[in-house]
Amino acid sequence: MLDASLQDVTADRECIFELFGRKLPYGRRYGIVAGTGRAMELLTHFRFHDEELEFLRKRRVVSSTALDWLANYRFSGSIRGYREGELYFPNSPLLEVRSSFAEGVILETLFLSVLNYDSAVASAAARMVSAAGGRPLAEMGSRRTSERSAVAAARAAYIAGFSATSNLEAGRSWGVPTMGTAAHSWTLLHETEEGAFRAQIQAQGTGTTLLVDTYDVREAVETAVRVAGPKLGGIRLDSGDLPVLVREVREQLDSLGATNTTITVTNDLDEYAIAGLQAVPVDSYGVGTSVVTGSGHVACGFVYKLVARKDEAGEWVSVAKKAPGKASIGGVKVPIRRRSERGTATAELIGLNGAPVGDADDRELWVDYVTDGEVNEKWLGKKGVEAAREHCTRAMKELPRTALRLRDGDAALETVLVYADGSRVEL
Amino acid sequence: MLDASLQDVTADRECIFELFGRKLPYGRRYGIVAGTGRAMELLTHFRFHDEELEFLRKRRVVSSTALDWLANYRFSGSIRGYREGELYFPNSPLLEVRSSFAEGVILETLFLSVLNYDSAVASAAARMVSAAGGRPLAEMGSRRTSERSAVAAARAAYIAGFSATSNLEAGRSWGVPTMGTAAHSWTLLHETEEGAFRAQIQAQGTGTTLLVDTYDVREAVETAVRVAGPKLGGIRLDSGDLPVLVREVREQLDSLGATNTTITVTNDLDEYAIAGLQAVPVDSYGVGTSVVTGSGHVACGFVYKLVARKDEAGEWVSVAKKAPGKASIGGVKVPIRRRSERGTATAELIGLNGAPVGDADDRELWVDYVTDGEVNEKWLGKKGVEAAREHCTRAMKELPRTALRLRDGDAALETVLVYADGSRVEL
Repeated sequence: MLDASLQDVTADRECIFELFGRKLPYGRRYGIVAGTGRAMELLTHFRFHDEELEFLRKRRVVSSTALDWLANYRFSGSIRGYREGELYFPNSPLLEVRSSFAEGVILETLFLSVLNYDSAVASAAARMVSAAGGRPLAEMGSRRTSERSAVAAARAAYIAGFSATSNLEAGRSWGVPTMGTAAHSWTLLHETEEGAFRAQIQAQGTGTTLLVDTYDVREAVETAVRVAGPKLGGIRLDSGDLPVLVREVREQLDSLGATNTTITVTNDLDEYAIAGLQAVPVDSYGVGTSVVTGSGHVACGFVYKLVARKDEAGEWVSVAKKAPGKASIGGVKVPIRRRSERGTATAELIGLNGAPVGDADDRELWVDYVTDGEVNEKWLGKKGVEAAREHCTRAMKELPRTALRLRDGDAALETVLVYADGSRVEL
Repeated sequence: MLDASLQDVTADRECIFELFGRKLPYGRRYGIVAGTGRAMELLTHFRFHDEELEFLRKRRVVSSTALDWLANYRFSGSIRGYREGELYFPNSPLLEVRSSFAEGVILETLFLSVLNYDSAVASAAARMVSAAGGRPLAEMGSRRTSERSAVAAARAAYIAGFSATSNLEAGRSWGVPTMGTAAHSWTLLHETEEGAFRAQIQAQGTGTTLLVDTYDVREAVETAVRVAGPKLGGIRLDSGDLPVLVREVREQLDSLGATNTTITVTNDLDEYAIAGLQAVPVDSYGVGTSVVTGSGHVACGFVYKLVARKDEAGEWVSVAKKAPGKASIGGVKVPIRRRSERGTATAELIGLNGAPVGDADDRELWVDYVTDGEVNEKWLGKKGVEAAREHCTRAMKELPRTALRLRDGDAALETVLVYADGSRVEL
């Protein structure tokens, strides 16, 4: 498309691309936008180097005109969109990319890859955070997603309210708090469980968390407190019938005087398992597979569509495909979150080709990410992550309480598309 | 664990770690190992640089002893495992890592991340290839998995028999054949569909594939053949009731004299949709979301466990945890594929602490990936990918035909664990 547009009159045609999802994953009541700051950071490095150009030339993927164009590529358009950490609903216009066709079209896969994955993780994570009712959650799923996705997943889960990650690279590159844990191999490496516990305490102090389910849990807990003393930081359980086991272990710890020793549980937890453990004295949850795989919905289904272009006379024309079941809505969309006087979100209001008429209680949803090629630093790096995490907490608080149920349901807010005169567009 | 082992006597203890899956994803009859070559390539670059060491130091993640050790890290052990492209079954020992505890334990997340994701994609892709019955499949799912996973997915799908990918970086770095397609935005960019088709043909020649479902398919096909002539390369359909639509479009193309114009279908295809289209004249399939997300099983559930270590006297000791439902089998496993005289696979035979007794029809499953720190170049890079793809085709041909059914079922081969004397170990 790039190549053909350069040989045509259309490469420089001003365009608006929109990134959105037609629906939420089945049963989900809201989604969390994540990856936007990461996408913008990738945009600042999005260049075509000699090795890439050489590949395209040798394989004759594109013409020499396109090669020259790519060699000089630098995005010079503007991008607005939902804040990272924001809630989204069906048809929420998550990103709006304004640029020439050529500059905008080649960002499609980059932006979709990042937002589809990161938002899937954040959306699942937010449900787990809500199910955990204030108990801390650690992301421990690096091994169940590919090696670079693991870093993105840790970042996305943190934005949605997780407390920490076991992925050290996410700590280094995005400032996510990190934590560690011992695996069963640590115990198996030693002649005895007691030897393993002693060695761990020797290196990490009594505040460490000991894994107690390699052999017999009851014996291990007894050994752990004997070795570490009642100031033992914590124990971890990674198997068994957790609701029963946690209660038993809590009683055992208390009876041994280790009343402040925490209990961390892991073992294929998802939001439902977390909810099922709320009545037992768990201190923190470690979540792996389910959070890094979006708890059943690993891609959000976001698409990136041309919604408007300038015609030969320089006037904006709304465009949309008409494919059955996959029709798009052409035109520029400006979103606001409608809120009641008490600050509860009541609708996702989207103005078509103009801002919707809001009132004082409503909240604007778009921020500027890129203005004429200049990326807004505010949303990048570690401070971008912290801002997104804070924003997510605030945005979640606006949701009606019923929206936090884990049960399958419809979108918590209705998406209402309106013309400039306030009349409703039928979706 | 690394840090504690360095302060203990155990860091240098000789260990054997095994990477395996306890079961196949629900209903799946076989899995395809992928990612091994990529993992070994990553291993050759697995170093800790100043910026990482500085992070670990500043955050006091590990002691200075561990920092020094990490600064000099270079894997000096040996790794054997299943060939990339090989079939696997429950408890197949996919990788065996022999090294000191310290050298082996820090590879856990790297190897699991790569193999869990890549094998999930390859396993799903193989089912699609089998459902397509010889018709070519293109991987087009980059946008539905994170930006680096996309490259790995294209590689894994190709190993499992896909013909091409739309991911150019996978072409550059792994030699996967690449293809392109026009999106709806290309048509919408132009005043008329005809204008879009003319511009595409101008740039790409009449051999190109035109997307015909932006507005009305029947009109678009008519326009396409009028503009390109009956030598038009192909058309693509991305929506609608495909079994009906494909037949209609084939008839229309034929009636216009475009009898060699191919029909490519896309639109959220998975192995079941592909199977459902086998009776209609589709020429090729483009598969996105379902292949890059493992068609419902995006992580294989592989684990990496310590299975043996040397004791203080230098003797090997088998080790395993006993957690209920997650118990492991300690000891070294040596796998062969049992085959009938006619070359049909009949069982996955795994010798415990010694090679199982096979016969002339059986096939060894392990190859050497790393020997005393030297990585075998044979399995790396583009030639490794080609070798894996060829191996996958051969290994699939050994499967009993019933194993290729898409319907949920048990593992196609039983995994039989035997002692050196041939007697069976109960799993």
